Formats: sequence, C-alpha cells, structure tokens
Amino acid sequence: MEKFKYPDINPLRIEMSDECQVYKGLEGICVKESRICYIDGKGSRLYYRGYNIMDLVEHSKYEEVVYLLLFGELPSREELESFERKLASKRRLPDGLRGLIRSLPKDSDPMDFLRTTVSAMSLFDDGGDETEKGIGLIAKAPVMLAEFHRYRSGLEPLEPREELSQAGNFLYMMFGKVPEGSEERVMDRAFLLLADHGLCASTFASLVTASTLADIYASITTAIGTLAGPLHGGANLQVLKMLEEVGSPDRAESYVEGMLKSGKRIWGFGHRVYKNFDPRYRAFKRMAREMAELRGRMDLFETAEKVEEAALKRLAHKNIYPNVDFYSGLVYYFLGIPQDLAITMFAISRMAGWVAHILEYWEQNRLIRPKAKYVGELDKKYVPIEER
Amino acid sequence: MEKFKYPDINPLRIEMSDECQVYKGLEGICVKESRICYIDGKGSRLYYRGYNIMDLVEHSKYEEVVYLLLFGELPSREELESFERKLASKRRLPDGLRGLIRSLPKDSDPMDFLRTTVSAMSLFDDGGDETEKGIGLIAKAPVMLAEFHRYRSGLEPLEPREELSQAGNFLYMMFGKVPEGSEERVMDRAFLLLADHGLCASTFASLVTASTLADIYASITTAIGTLAGPLHGGANLQVLKMLEEVGSPDRAESYVEGMLKSGKRIWGFGHRVYKNFDPRYRAFKRMAREMAELRGRMDLFETAEKVEEAALKRLAHKNIYPNVDFYSGLVYYFLGIPQDLAITMFAISRMAGWVAHILEYWEQNRLIRPKAKYVGELDKKYVPIEER
Repeated sequence: MEKFKYPDINPLRIEMSDECQVYKGLEGICVKESRICYIDGKGSRLYYRGYNIMDLVEHSKYEEVVYLLLFGELPSREELESFERKLASKRRLPDGLRGLIRSLPKDSDPMDFLRTTVSAMSLFDDGGDETEKGIGLIAKAPVMLAEFHRYRSGLEPLEPREELSQAGNFLYMMFGKVPEGSEERVMDRAFLLLADHGLCASTFASLVTASTLADIYASITTAIGTLAGPLHGGANLQVLKMLEEVGSPDRAESYVEGMLKSGKRIWGFGHRVYKNFDPRYRAFKRMAREMAELRGRMDLFETAEKVEEAALKRLAHKNIYPNVDFYSGLVYYFLGIPQDLAITMFAISRMAGWVAHILEYWEQNRLIRPKAKYVGELDKKYVPIEER
Repeated sequence: MEKFKYPDINPLRIEMSDECQVYKGLEGICVKESRICYIDGKGSRLYYRGYNIMDLVEHSKYEEVVYLLLFGELPSREELESFERKLASKRRLPDGLRGLIRSLPKDSDPMDFLRTTVSAMSLFDDGGDETEKGIGLIAKAPVMLAEFHRYRSGLEPLEPREELSQAGNFLYMMFGKVPEGSEERVMDRAFLLLADHGLCASTFASLVTASTLADIYASITTAIGTLAGPLHGGANLQVLKMLEEVGSPDRAESYVEGMLKSGKRIWGFGHRVYKNFDPRYRAFKRMAREMAELRGRMDLFETAEKVEEAALKRLAHKNIYPNVDFYSGLVYYFLGIPQDLAITMFAISRMAGWVAHILEYWEQNRLIRPKAKYVGELDKKYVPIEER
C-alpha cells in the first residue's frame, strides 16, 4: 500500500485570509432570530413573547411569565398550576451544595458567590433534560441567595416552603417570616420586570457557551459572570449610594447640577436601546412610591423624584432618560434586601430569560465563532536566549 | 419649576428596528484586531506572536511561550527567570480553596470541577491587578487539577515545588515523584502546543464576559464552561476510545472502512481552519512515538498510525486531515494521565492564551453586544386565565 502524502506547502508564502471589516463590539450585527423579546426603544415598549410588559405587570405574575418566556404561550390554569408545583418542588438545595456554600468565605462578593454556586450545581445535579435543569435553576437561584444571606449573617438556615410563590418563598427564606401580601406582590413584579431583556451581553455570552453544546449549568455560569461586569449590571446599587449622598429632596437640584458640571454621571440614567423612558422604570417608580408609603419613608422617595426631575431637565435633550435601575434599588431597599445584593437580584430574576434564550438557540444550534483580524508580525526569527 | 414632560409616544405604531441580515454563528465576521495568534490554514502554519509554533516547540519552552503570549516579545534571560520565579511562587492553592475542593463529589466531571474551582478562586483572591491574577491562574490551574486527581483517587495531597517547571511540578503533583527529563520535556511541549489557537469559541466567549469589565476569574470561568462543549473540546478522549476499539494495527483498515461506510466519523480528523494537516498534529505525533518507545508500547502507536493512514486515504480528497487531537490523547496516556482528564489538560494549557486575549482586549475595550432579529408577534392581547 502506498503511503499517503500531504499536499505540498509553499515554504515562502504565508496565506493570509481575506481582508475583513472589523465590527467592534459586534454593534449592529444580528447573530440570530428570536421570538422571545422585543424592545421598542423609541416607543418605550418592551414585549415578552409579543405581550406588552405593562399588561403583564398589571395582570400576570412571575410564574406565569416564566412559563410564557420558556414555552412561548400563556398557560392554561391547569398548565400554570402544574408549572408552579414543579418550581416549588425543585426549590430544595442538594445537601452537598449547602455544605459547599458553608465552605465559602462569609464576605464573598455576592455575584462571585452566585456564579460559583450555580457552577457547582452541575456537580449535584439530579438528572432530567436541559429544560428540567433550567427550571431547576430558576427555582433554586433565589433559594441559593437567601441561603447565602442567612449564612453570612449568622442566621439559621431555613427550608423552602412549597405552598409559597417564588417571590413569597424568597422573602420568607431571607427574613424568616411569610411576607405581607403587598410585599410579596412587589417582589413578584420586580422579578417579572427583570425576567428578560433580549440579547443583552450576559444573554449573548450564555449563547456562545451554549453553542458548543456545553450544558445549561456552564451556560448560565457564563451569564452570571458576564452580568457582574460594571458595564452591564450593577447601576441600581450606585443609585442608592447617590440618594444617600443627596440626603434630602431640597438638595437634589444643587447635587445634580454639581455632578454634571464636574463631568460626572447621574446613575440610573441612559440606555443603549431606549431613546425615551424605560417602561420598566415607570413600573418600578410606582412600586417604590407604594413601598415608601408603606414604610413611612416618603422622604427617600421624594429625594429620588427630585433628583430625577433635576437630571431630566438637564439630560432629556440628549435622549438620556431614567432607566430601570433608577427606582429598582429603592424597591429592593424597602423590601429589606441588603444593598450589596442588588446585582444578584437582577441575576435571579433574569435566570428565566437566560434559560429561555438558551433553549431557543439550541432549536437551531450553530457554533458561535467570529474571527479576529490578525494585524501582528509573521515569520519572526527565533533568537536563542543567549543572543537576546 | 415646570415639571418635565416625556416625549409623546404614538400609541398605534410600534417602531421596528431596521431589517438586519443574520450572520448565523457569526461566521466570517471579524470582532477585533489581534496580534497574538495567526493560523495559516492552507499552509499548515501556526504562529504565536509571529513565531512559528514549530520553531517554538523545538527551541523554546512553555514558560517562555507564556511570557511571549502575554507580553508580546521573547524575554531576556533575566526576564524569563523572574517570570519563572513568579509562576512558581503563585502555585500554592489558598487553604480555603483546598477545603472547597474536598467538599466536592469525588466523581465530579473534571471540567465541571475545574470551572467551579476557577470561579471560586475569586473568593480566595490574594490581590494584585488583573495581569497578576491571570498569571496566578496559569500557575495554579495544573495544581488544582493535580489536587483533584489525588483527592478523588484517595491519595495524600502534595505541596507544589518551586524549583520545578510548570510541566515538572504538574507531573510531580499528579504522581508523587519528580518526572524523568524526557517526560517533563514531553509534558512541557504538550502545554506549549495547546497554549493558544486564536479566537476559538472559548476564547471568544471569555472576551464577551471580559468586555463588560467583569474580572479575569469571571472571564476564564466562561472560557472553561465553553471549552467543555462537545462541539469544541473533547475529541482527544474519543481518539483513545477509538484506538481501544481498533485493538491492533492489522485491524485499522477494516475498522476505518466500516466506520466511514456506516456514516460515522473518525475522531481526531478535520478542522474548521486547517485545509491541510494541523502543524500541532506533527509535533504530537513525534512525541507519541518517542513516548511509545519509552513505554514499550509501539503497538499502540502503530495502531494509531495505521488508522491515520487508512483514514487519510479515504478523507484527504475532502480536505479532511488529522488534527491536534489525533495524537495528543495518546501522549497524555503515555504520561499516565487518566483519560477522563483529557479536556482539562486542554484547559490548563489554554489558560495562557485565554489570559493573553483578555488582556489584549481590555487595551481597547468595547462591550460585545450583537443584536437578535425579532421575528415573533407583537401587541398580543393579554387574555385572563379564566378565559383561556
């Protein structure tokens, strides 16, 4: 048998790939079709599966919206009840995972904590297909966070309660008492409003991981790691810090003027897609007012509102409007959630959207693999170290 | 003061963004410029920072190549010695991390293990800038893997030894004895050959995470999760399984013929970029032969070579040639590395390239955020659950 010979290579000629245009940040490039979320940035409208978010926040609830995002249609009563039972039954954390949480430093950064715990979930997986695992992550993420809160605060761990909603169980496990109906409803709407927002950087990153057919744990771990970046999540925490600095409503004008004059930004303002107000901002604002009244802290709400007005006067002509972060931090604050958990609240809400986008991508999977344009040198001569 | 009024919204008109072409998998799209790696797919050449990989594998060593990838130039002797001391000094795992490793199931999937442990590194971080942390990850990744191997095998943990090279220390910590020079050299070249390969899916995914200014731990965690996908890493394990199935050199022809006739693939063949042999394949083949002689297992090497020849006869006309995976699994096998650690070997080698690409991206950072084209419905009417 004749031995195979490889094709000859021209030793003098390096083949350069064709010139290609570089799309920095991939801005404007479409990577896939989607039926999950539409953002009308000029019209201040956000749709989940074709339903306006303002209809959903008024009439629906988080569990129903998760079902809608994952499966594309609003559930019948029977489907919803079955789905709620499934979520409730998947809340309990595996013992091994609870042990692992207790092996982490109490001062762990909450997002680093959540990323590590979600990654470790794959090691304690109890089977099922990727959809089941995804639903498990949606069910367990708030439980993990509450477990972490109690552990680092030196509080006894609690068992999840199956008769409570996702929102109700989360508040119960955080604070050790079943929440008032009004609190649960606010938490529920806060989860719902952040459940998806199209192809943000964390969602896109999770699709790159998923596109290699890595599993849902790897893909969601990627999403959490990406959300933690200051250019993505995290502004809601800054808004609260800003309101503390302002201190009272009458100081809002001079604070905003001072900040803008010295070239600093007003946190919670501006968005890459919205060229008018962010519809979620309106919903969060209503909830912040409601909770401020309940807590007797209208002073804080009014400070926020005065900052908003002062900033709008000066920024609206540049199409810079308040975004979802402006009042969401305040809502979490009134619910008693520690300020440093703000980005993790975003993460546990968005879990639903991440899972939905990953499952949708797998329906027509294609490895995501753009190119880099090589602009360096070639065929450099290796000089031995003694001659350098 | 007059209250701000938001611009009016046309309640009857949803603004759809402009039509956009969908680039599935982002194939052919350039996302950035790079000076790190060039692959000449027609000419079977791979360059790190302009140096041909075949020169590097012959004359250089892993630590020097890591320096080259990270800093762009070959080091002077003084720079190299200082860098080697730094790597050696960063090998020791924090106690908390060692405790965490021991809280994981012994039958953990090795890639899930590595992803979780690298993610947890951020919780036990000892400071320094992102470059220092990246060098720490390069130094520690093989140590983590060896620690895992010993833990799951019920062996006593070992302390890293600063006087050994990265390759030498890894083999020492795996097997409890300082390796022979020939073994160390093979391990060193295996690390070097896989240290980078341009913008593969895991490297790109890590850049999406990094582009939000998330930290290096989050970014590398993303890379590991992405590498685990069957469409990306993992073929080297399959090659070994295939050789076991073949059994002996004389059965190679009929095995390959049978596989191809029944429409199955030959593992370790084919690559998206190389349209001729993969240059790393040649280097790994030489090392596999060398190790086979050392171990008295030329039968296994010859089986591989016969499978290679039989497959080439039938596949080369379709531009399908052996890739890096074809002999790398065999090299690991001869080094005594358990077969199920094959993808993690890839990961700990590639750590250098991941860190280099992330640091390069941050020099001109831009949030990576392509779009999805919305093809679903809009303005669906919310129907109360009792009417569904």
